[in-house]
Amino acid sequence: MLVERCKKIFGASGADKLAVTSPDLRFYLTGFYSSDGMVLADEKGACFYTDARYLEAASAALSGSGIAVAPVPEGGYYSLVGCKKLAVALSKITAEEYIALSSEADALIDCTPAFTEAMGVKEDAELSAIERSCGIADRAFTDMLGAFKEGMSENDAAAELEYRMRRYGASGTSFETIMAFGEGSSVPHHETGERKLKFGDVILVDFGCKWGGYCSDCTRTMLFGDDKKHGEFKKAYEKVLAAHMAAKERIVPGMTGSQADAVARGVLKEAELDKYFTHSLGHGIGVNIHEFPRLSPKSCDILKDGMVFSDEPGVYFEGDFGIRIEDSVALKDGRVISLTDSDKNLIIL
Amino acid sequence: MLVERCKKIFGASGADKLAVTSPDLRFYLTGFYSSDGMVLADEKGACFYTDARYLEAASAALSGSGIAVAPVPEGGYYSLVGCKKLAVALSKITAEEYIALSSEADALIDCTPAFTEAMGVKEDAELSAIERSCGIADRAFTDMLGAFKEGMSENDAAAELEYRMRRYGASGTSFETIMAFGEGSSVPHHETGERKLKFGDVILVDFGCKWGGYCSDCTRTMLFGDDKKHGEFKKAYEKVLAAHMAAKERIVPGMTGSQADAVARGVLKEAELDKYFTHSLGHGIGVNIHEFPRLSPKSCDILKDGMVFSDEPGVYFEGDFGIRIEDSVALKDGRVISLTDSDKNLIIL
Repeated sequence: MLVERCKKIFGASGADKLAVTSPDLRFYLTGFYSSDGMVLADEKGACFYTDARYLEAASAALSGSGIAVAPVPEGGYYSLVGCKKLAVALSKITAEEYIALSSEADALIDCTPAFTEAMGVKEDAELSAIERSCGIADRAFTDMLGAFKEGMSENDAAAELEYRMRRYGASGTSFETIMAFGEGSSVPHHETGERKLKFGDVILVDFGCKWGGYCSDCTRTMLFGDDKKHGEFKKAYEKVLAAHMAAKERIVPGMTGSQADAVARGVLKEAELDKYFTHSLGHGIGVNIHEFPRLSPKSCDILKDGMVFSDEPGVYFEGDFGIRIEDSVALKDGRVISLTDSDKNLIIL
Repeated sequence: MLVERCKKIFGASGADKLAVTSPDLRFYLTGFYSSDGMVLADEKGACFYTDARYLEAASAALSGSGIAVAPVPEGGYYSLVGCKKLAVALSKITAEEYIALSSEADALIDCTPAFTEAMGVKEDAELSAIERSCGIADRAFTDMLGAFKEGMSENDAAAELEYRMRRYGASGTSFETIMAFGEGSSVPHHETGERKLKFGDVILVDFGCKWGGYCSDCTRTMLFGDDKKHGEFKKAYEKVLAAHMAAKERIVPGMTGSQADAVARGVLKEAELDKYFTHSLGHGIGVNIHEFPRLSPKSCDILKDGMVFSDEPGVYFEGDFGIRIEDSVALKDGRVISLTDSDKNLIIL
């Protein structure tokens, strides 16, 4: 029952009450998305307070969850929280909320660590939602391969891909699609624009969707026809793919984020490409597109079975081209499994 | 020049330095979107610090803006902020950031009011971006009218509408599209799902997109064929439309948000429908879909020329049907003009 999540976070906090106001954490606790509301838990139980716009839908959605639903009281949400020790997520409330809540309780206790730990390891239902989200992304991408046309803009190609994700069941994108043609691929966070697709272009597409409130994240790099000028590109592609696969083969539970990052970075270092790998290997994926754990050179986060994260090595040659190969993956029974899993061999359209 | 916005906020703060970390405020100051970075301003000028993923794109985008671009220093963003009086937006930083920043400066000064005031009144370039965003939403909606088909799911209809917005130039949606068929329309924030469209259904669609970083927001309520059982619906529709139009005709600069709300609420009260109008009349629209000012029964926000907000009265009959008619509008030269403006007379498809 969903109320167990509230009980777990509340229990770990050691506080008298737990107050959760940020949309993502509220969704994690209730499975119901709203732009406004507060989950309040104490030793007696948990209640989701929200405004009139959401009451009917919330009552239906939370029926049987063990979490009560009630309207925001006349005095506002903060009129409910008075106690000695109040648990809040300091990483998710604003400074303004912090200052206001400070005067309602003798002490504020940070429950961010409890949320991080709980949300970092996915329950079966959460993993299923992410698998579904990844399956939709895979299907849309594979279906999109035939839709790339010479003269098409990055925006148009992104529209076609997003349309397919939506039609295959996604509620929306999990972040703004990066569709980069040619030299745009050399910018890790290229802004999708009106650049037209030409024969011989590199295509880099970083995309994902949401299903059931959970995100997917995937990147593929391809060639739109082979103009025989891509010798360097193809060599680098093989190295990035080797780094991506090494991470999948060698990351195991118990490693730190920095050890995991080092697996892929080491492969690129051997090929003298590590200086072009200008970002981290990966990030946790769940309700949010960027979550715990981080897989980066300085990360001390410990990887565990049940975690979902991205495996996304990349190299970028400014003004020329970039390559990134990314899957959403999970640690399951001691090894990495791919959740997005469309073809990673170089596709020449 | 964009640096003028930094100067204005910094100048209003009375602080030694201004540090801006939230993505929306950073976008407002720089016109460049990134998931990571900090704008730091002092009396000497302004600089946008960001990580390696964004440096190339940010340098190109901010060229000529008067704002410098630099990589995040080895010691992290907070190593830059030390001073006596540091201005930050308490409504936009997390409690965690607040606690960390508190130890870097003698005092933190809230610059939220300066941002609220500056962002509330749109500059010409901002208004143009919102007009473009609204134009795309209008065109997609009008084009979508012929695409509703019996048996189509809410998700499929939303996909068709979003695809059209994307193809007509939007970078994405400004919020999750609400596509409600039949009784789903009675839930103000209905979750778009697999409900299939039937002859005689009410269709309520609340949608918007982003262009150039700025949002649009529009709602229309229609009938999918007339099964002659919609007498009550049609009567209520006329009243909601009258409330919507009264707001447009009678809202003027200088009114408070509560006075503006009362204009529409009064029309529904005369028709004895006000108890079914369970939300506020409107909200500011800009970089974010919900901004200053609020047009609600308790709002003291003062409306001014140059503000952009929604005019969205609605009535909801639980389990039966709902009606909402919404345009994005602007106050210009003392009166309300429509920015979204597709046909608001009852459409029977």
